[in-house]
Amino acid sequence: MTYKHHVPSLDRLIHELKKWPGVGPRSANRWANWLLKLPEAEIQKLRQALEDIKTNIKRCPGCFTLTEEETLCYLCNSTSRRKDLICVVEEPFDIARMEASGKFKGQYHVLHGTLSPLNNINPDHLTIEPLMKKITNGQIKEIILALDADMEGDITALYIGKLLKDRDIKVSRLAHGIPFGGNIDYIDEQTLGRALENRVDFSI
Amino acid sequence: MTYKHHVPSLDRLIHELKKWPGVGPRSANRWANWLLKLPEAEIQKLRQALEDIKTNIKRCPGCFTLTEEETLCYLCNSTSRRKDLICVVEEPFDIARMEASGKFKGQYHVLHGTLSPLNNINPDHLTIEPLMKKITNGQIKEIILALDADMEGDITALYIGKLLKDRDIKVSRLAHGIPFGGNIDYIDEQTLGRALENRVDFSI
Repeated sequence: MTYKHHVPSLDRLIHELKKWPGVGPRSANRWANWLLKLPEAEIQKLRQALEDIKTNIKRCPGCFTLTEEETLCYLCNSTSRRKDLICVVEEPFDIARMEASGKFKGQYHVLHGTLSPLNNINPDHLTIEPLMKKITNGQIKEIILALDADMEGDITALYIGKLLKDRDIKVSRLAHGIPFGGNIDYIDEQTLGRALENRVDFSI
Repeated sequence: MTYKHHVPSLDRLIHELKKWPGVGPRSANRWANWLLKLPEAEIQKLRQALEDIKTNIKRCPGCFTLTEEETLCYLCNSTSRRKDLICVVEEPFDIARMEASGKFKGQYHVLHGTLSPLNNINPDHLTIEPLMKKITNGQIKEIILALDADMEGDITALYIGKLLKDRDIKVSRLAHGIPFGGNIDYIDEQTLGRALENRVDFSI
């Protein structure tokens, strides 16, 4: 399906929008039409936001998440969070998801990726060294590995687990299992297998 | 579901993206993450395209579609299209859809809306007067009303049909084949092509 309007800047905008993940020609066309009718001021807000994410955002020197703070991010700066507990995540965006769960009140550490031998991503590409430094210097009691439940997540968890083997630190991973509201009929075998392996005691 | 990152420019971008039609917090979050990792040059292309649609595009004085040409648009300028046949559409974007059907080789006329008594859209808000002028001055033999199959489309077709009642001009509407309530933007080419071939007489 083609949506060629023969209006160069319009076709250019649609071309750019089609690059976005999961966006097809139909959606790109629809949004271009919508953007075209948007007031100048709204377009400016969007353009400014696109510029700002490039110029204002840097990495927090504490946990390596994204921040605009001059020194540490709002989480590292918080005085109400436990200092002896670190949750290791792959991406800065994972933090907002963890925070939404409302169940974690410790520190974070963003790896900025996962180990992937196939893609030549090795430990030097991630923030594993600063994580080890934190553990050596600090009073860390527990590390929670909140990594994706895929092969790269498994490899990375295994690697960090080995590094921490002889330290006096509790290391845990997020439980794998049936999602809340999930129906056993529709769960894939891998998930069900893990849910079975990691079954929890339910003696009442 | 909230995705608050506590990074002002990032949260602002997500806020802007959520305004887009059909975009929820999940998609806005995903795209913000993707845009964040995009190279500076790609962001610039997007920002430029957003500026260009506001500064470069004007209405063709012939058919009132969008164009960047100094005089007439590429369709009005074409020498290979019939001059005695006008297809009346609601929006500039409808033209790309009609062209994709490959069944129409005449001129277009963009109304820029439809009559809508409820929303106070009357004939003066549309390009109906220039359409009548074209018909009076020209050698137009047929008018095809390619309007959406909804109430506003019906009202507008009826109004134009009445204006052309005593003129020696064939007036037709796209065949029903378009489901009632359907929007031309979302019809596939085959259906649209058939609807064009089977257009029915609308002389009142």
